[in-house]
Amino acid sequence: MSDSLTLASFQQHIRDRYYATDAARGSAKTFVWFIEEVGELATALNGSDAANLREEFADVFAWLCTLANINDVDLAAAVREKYLSEKPPEGTK
Amino acid sequence: MSDSLTLASFQQHIRDRYYATDAARGSAKTFVWFIEEVGELATALNGSDAANLREEFADVFAWLCTLANINDVDLAAAVREKYLSEKPPEGTK
Repeated sequence: MSDSLTLASFQQHIRDRYYATDAARGSAKTFVWFIEEVGELATALNGSDAANLREEFADVFAWLCTLANINDVDLAAAVREKYLSEKPPEGTK
Repeated sequence: MSDSLTLASFQQHIRDRYYATDAARGSAKTFVWFIEEVGELATALNGSDAANLREEFADVFAWLCTLANINDVDLAAAVREKYLSEKPPEGTK
């Protein structure tokens, strides 16, 4: 996997495209949308449509970026802090 | 946000570190772990601990990468296909 897409650029893409709508909706209502996508991912995991499965993974990640945007969280920084620092979590995540 | 961390490299990092354990656990049980982290994110969103909030966003993303790994989904490719192709979704995501 050598794809050059960065977390930061995709989070920014979601911000550029949807921030005004997302911020107006607010965090709680956006969480409900996020969970709806998580449910669709569950359905796709139980199915056999590989294209749909890819789409649902993408949607969950996009809504996670949205939630991060309206809660002032830099996802790449958060990931570095937890998983790529000198003391990453041992064993399970 | 100019962080250089790519989706592909982080998904690979999670694969390198946890794939054997994740694959042995299987998709359904891993989904339960993922949902546990989503629940912790909900708690953090309702709280006021910014460091904890960052950590929970990181955990949800890490477990999404795990789920993608054991279901043979390339997250960066999925995201490009849905959100960065010539016909991205209109309006809401």
